[in-house]
Amino acid sequence: MNSVTLAPPPLIAPGLDLYAPIAADLEEVERILARVLKNKHPRVAEVVAHVQHYRGKRLRPMLLLLTARACGRMTPAHHVLGAVVEMIHTATLVHDGVLDGARIRRRLATVNAVWGVQTSVLLGDYLFTHAFHLASTLDDAHACRMIGEATDRVCEGELCQVLQRGNLDLSEAEYFDIIDGKTAELTACCCHLGALYSGAPPEVVQALVRYGRRVGLAFQIADDLLDLVGEEKMTGKSLGTDVEQQKLTLPLIYLLNQGDKASSARVRQILSSPDNHKRESLRPYLIEGGGLAYAQRRAEELAAEARAELVCLPPSPCRSILEALTERVVHRNT
Amino acid sequence: MNSVTLAPPPLIAPGLDLYAPIAADLEEVERILARVLKNKHPRVAEVVAHVQHYRGKRLRPMLLLLTARACGRMTPAHHVLGAVVEMIHTATLVHDGVLDGARIRRRLATVNAVWGVQTSVLLGDYLFTHAFHLASTLDDAHACRMIGEATDRVCEGELCQVLQRGNLDLSEAEYFDIIDGKTAELTACCCHLGALYSGAPPEVVQALVRYGRRVGLAFQIADDLLDLVGEEKMTGKSLGTDVEQQKLTLPLIYLLNQGDKASSARVRQILSSPDNHKRESLRPYLIEGGGLAYAQRRAEELAAEARAELVCLPPSPCRSILEALTERVVHRNT
Repeated sequence: MNSVTLAPPPLIAPGLDLYAPIAADLEEVERILARVLKNKHPRVAEVVAHVQHYRGKRLRPMLLLLTARACGRMTPAHHVLGAVVEMIHTATLVHDGVLDGARIRRRLATVNAVWGVQTSVLLGDYLFTHAFHLASTLDDAHACRMIGEATDRVCEGELCQVLQRGNLDLSEAEYFDIIDGKTAELTACCCHLGALYSGAPPEVVQALVRYGRRVGLAFQIADDLLDLVGEEKMTGKSLGTDVEQQKLTLPLIYLLNQGDKASSARVRQILSSPDNHKRESLRPYLIEGGGLAYAQRRAEELAAEARAELVCLPPSPCRSILEALTERVVHRNT
Repeated sequence: MNSVTLAPPPLIAPGLDLYAPIAADLEEVERILARVLKNKHPRVAEVVAHVQHYRGKRLRPMLLLLTARACGRMTPAHHVLGAVVEMIHTATLVHDGVLDGARIRRRLATVNAVWGVQTSVLLGDYLFTHAFHLASTLDDAHACRMIGEATDRVCEGELCQVLQRGNLDLSEAEYFDIIDGKTAELTACCCHLGALYSGAPPEVVQALVRYGRRVGLAFQIADDLLDLVGEEKMTGKSLGTDVEQQKLTLPLIYLLNQGDKASSARVRQILSSPDNHKRESLRPYLIEGGGLAYAQRRAEELAAEARAELVCLPPSPCRSILEALTERVVHRNT
């Protein structure tokens, strides 16, 4: 599992290299990941290597590193923390593989599909504990506390989501509370750590926390849209798992509450049915009833709010990328 | 979820109150657990409360607190760390419920049996992150690092065990490596934290780490014996899951390697068969072939080694209980 032999992570936007100003920093993060995750037991090493290969967009370390550079100071702690947040995110992905039964993630078979549920559960745990352990190698307990707080909220959000499955009366407020926990809390934490460890003044730190939270919310709404209407070929992952599991997301919540009575009743019927083609059956309602447009608009509003927070930073290539990211997270096909 | 209304944890040995000298400390640990685990979402609170009720022997916080008192000094950090190690242990139990498909644990239906796999996975994660977060509330990062190191090894041990399932050639050394990780590392860590935070000199700390490791190994061998030949009514948990899943434990490893050729072949055949009554079929071989006696003897040797480490401590009620515990962990029916 040599990090040098791995392909570079895919760009969020082919054609525009969002990684360039932090390429060396991301490489350092990769080196730390490879070092921390290696294991002397060949069977364990093999499973860990598999996850190492399903490299995604590295959104979370990017946010952390870009924030640090945009605030004017990069430290070794940033690289360590970049590895920590990526491991935590990967742990949740591995466990999501157990939860949603997905067979493909980041264009690779999930651990679940290859080794089964037991290994997935333990591998996720392994990633969690290694992330916390790595965070604790920094001298102060502050980073551990911030990571601990954020992951508490991540798990709470995920747990709420699962316990709310099948609840077709989920409100928009409850949906936002869930995605705020399961996604936005960690992206906010990344920006918090990036800014704090660069020594930025408190008001800048707080503005970047708000930026990170809004980027996370916008990202998750876009992610939920892809699950409803994206193409598997483009995204490289199993789609439609939300509706299969009766997890309501924003376009459906909108339709159920704001749609005309007949469509709303029909959507409710489709969601409750044992039908295996819910995604296809829902599509016309999502388009005509305005559910997709509504969710897309909400994501764009959040992205705009995120962008507005960046005025506290002096102009720089990294600030420009943070700005560009807000567009990219809401206009995705992967 | 009020800790005051919960029944006190069962004694390891009814008739001899091993908890008395640390009763107030254990109550403080319970208060911390109740405070840390409460959640504002009613559905989350309900699941967490269920786990709070499957209170076991509290072996890990006991080791931590007894070690502290036997070393002469109890601090608020000890109570916090007692809650941390219990949460970590409970997280692994909840995830074990996913792994071994057990329906009963600590005399209660497992989270898995009531809420399903998804909730079990997320609840385990919730307990892990809350444990790490709680550890990080202590002022120095040292405790986080020790807990991080120990849980890394716990997960590695569990992962090895799952990846070695079905390997009927598992060696005794490999078995000991697995249980050293999945069980003994955390009991050693408990004694380490207890002694260290009481300000004990380094040689005493190291002796107590060795004590904790040997107690953990002995405990796990005894636990594995119960899974093979214990009674569900007494233990309050599903048994026989190890052989069902072709997880080799010490008595079987002994039979396969040291038993006479015919018995060894028959044991191998039983383990490989799709038969649902493996436990019953194996019993005569385990008794006559000496597998049970061998494992019991190894556990007793480890318990004696653990006891010998305690000579570094001045006589005290807590030292006596630490001594008594070494007997209890190897002569268990629960």
